[in-house]
Amino acid sequence: MNNCINFSLKETIKFLKKNDNYIILTHASPDGDTLGAGYALYYGLKQLGKQVEVVCPDVIPQDYAFFLCETDHVNREGATLVAVDIADKRLLGALQEEFGESIDLNIDHHISNTRYAKALYLDSDASATCEIMYEVLSGLKVKLNDTIAKALYTGISTDTGCFKYSCVTAKTHKIAAALYDYNIEADVINKVMFDTKSKDLLTLERMVLDTAEYHFDDKCMIVTVTADMLKKTGCKGTQLEGITNISRSVDGVLAGVTIKQTDDNTYKISIRTYAPLNASQICVSLGGGGHKNAAAVILKGSLQEVKDKVLCAIKQQMEETNAWTSAVR
Amino acid sequence: MNNCINFSLKETIKFLKKNDNYIILTHASPDGDTLGAGYALYYGLKQLGKQVEVVCPDVIPQDYAFFLCETDHVNREGATLVAVDIADKRLLGALQEEFGESIDLNIDHHISNTRYAKALYLDSDASATCEIMYEVLSGLKVKLNDTIAKALYTGISTDTGCFKYSCVTAKTHKIAAALYDYNIEADVINKVMFDTKSKDLLTLERMVLDTAEYHFDDKCMIVTVTADMLKKTGCKGTQLEGITNISRSVDGVLAGVTIKQTDDNTYKISIRTYAPLNASQICVSLGGGGHKNAAAVILKGSLQEVKDKVLCAIKQQMEETNAWTSAVR
Repeated sequence: MNNCINFSLKETIKFLKKNDNYIILTHASPDGDTLGAGYALYYGLKQLGKQVEVVCPDVIPQDYAFFLCETDHVNREGATLVAVDIADKRLLGALQEEFGESIDLNIDHHISNTRYAKALYLDSDASATCEIMYEVLSGLKVKLNDTIAKALYTGISTDTGCFKYSCVTAKTHKIAAALYDYNIEADVINKVMFDTKSKDLLTLERMVLDTAEYHFDDKCMIVTVTADMLKKTGCKGTQLEGITNISRSVDGVLAGVTIKQTDDNTYKISIRTYAPLNASQICVSLGGGGHKNAAAVILKGSLQEVKDKVLCAIKQQMEETNAWTSAVR
Repeated sequence: MNNCINFSLKETIKFLKKNDNYIILTHASPDGDTLGAGYALYYGLKQLGKQVEVVCPDVIPQDYAFFLCETDHVNREGATLVAVDIADKRLLGALQEEFGESIDLNIDHHISNTRYAKALYLDSDASATCEIMYEVLSGLKVKLNDTIAKALYTGISTDTGCFKYSCVTAKTHKIAAALYDYNIEADVINKVMFDTKSKDLLTLERMVLDTAEYHFDDKCMIVTVTADMLKKTGCKGTQLEGITNISRSVDGVLAGVTIKQTDDNTYKISIRTYAPLNASQICVSLGGGGHKNAAAVILKGSLQEVKDKVLCAIKQQMEETNAWTSAVR
């Protein structure tokens, strides 16, 4: 939609003050950033006396319970729709049909944002939508409290791999420092988000390690998570996020690929890259999208067909960027 | 040594300005914090026109090469000895005999510091010695540059698990934000420190997972790394730090124990705990020491004897703290 208006921070704040009834939408398979930003905005707008509902297309994992709450029931009719951290309307999942064409305001940090909303406040320099939301709430003169600070910290921490990735800036750390003025129990949050796994997940990790394949002089690693493995271990959803990091962790690998079977003939491909490779470009060429270093695409076909497509796209980019000969890592 | 004088930040700065020839000592099995603090101080004192040598009891891993350099050769006679991040003189390893009794100044953040030096600047609220060193260098009016900032960031990041642990404060994040004013390439540093492993290390991880034992209603997990495993995979030294985190990552585990064979009948026990357990107390009771959540001890005996001793100490603390019944995690 080309009629999407670019909002500044000031315009965003003005818009959020203006109306009375807001529905905040988070993306499907919700993560810390979409939920943190959504609930932080909820608490903020409640302080301004608005009626506010948070709507998530999927069940919210219990891991986030520490900043969740029962929200209002807002009449769809006449409500103002705000999407947070949703780069593409398809990420609304089950709610795309109901809300996809009528989002009033989209607050996001993904450079790949498809501009589907009526207005967009995009800050692609922000490490997380929660980093933007911190500034939005400041502008709205919302008084932070422990719960809001926890929600914002969770989004920033999870989207940056706990301040690890290249998206982190001085501003990210300054905001984190400000959030430590509240009792956020960051170590507890990080423990849950990054360092807790079940015995079953440990078993799954061993199974996944068994599928490891190396290609292109070991510069590309592929691991596969089959539906059968998930069934055997009972692992699902956000539990699997750590699995995606296995393939990016091996010395010398420039493209780490995780192929996850989501249905008989459907696979979600998550790609993590290091320069000169660009995960977003690889995934866009296959019909997906994402960030420079982390992107994804859903492909149909047999496992081998899917693998071949991905390898072909990676090979092409390796040739274009001379990744074969450049001694980057 | 009870004659150890407590230095304030101001006294520490004055002391570092006073003399001309400094030898900076790092601890054995050097990590990011001792090396980062040691080299940051080196670069700082060089700016003040001093002769400075950094001495490390062990070979420094190549991972830290990005902030290392050739240092001066300082005559032992008449040199001022500064130990950084060394809680106990025994951690001087091979250099204990030469330097253990004559350290002039010890700059450290470990609450378990044994006060072996003539003067001690201890800030046990600091997440890392590099956090202290940032303030020392500020006080010395040292002009930071990319290399010094990288060294300090490395120490802070590695000692906090990349801003994950409970030792992190607002100050930690404020210092990190200030270091981002330089070209520290934090993502590259963190990639090397946290997310890079060799194929061999992946193999070792699988072997170690096979040794997993659970005790005390699954509140204690023990994994073992034998000398044989290390020989088979060729893994050694700092490569093994990640292994220690396996046992602390399983849901419900309050005491994660890693037993690493260092010799025929010698084992290094690393313990990671969650409240109400206290790793430092457990390890002190066995003759070791460390932090509240992470501590270590070296024990001699057969693997089973060592395991029994450790289990006994953990069991005792579980009883003292009612860890059996308290639903902490």
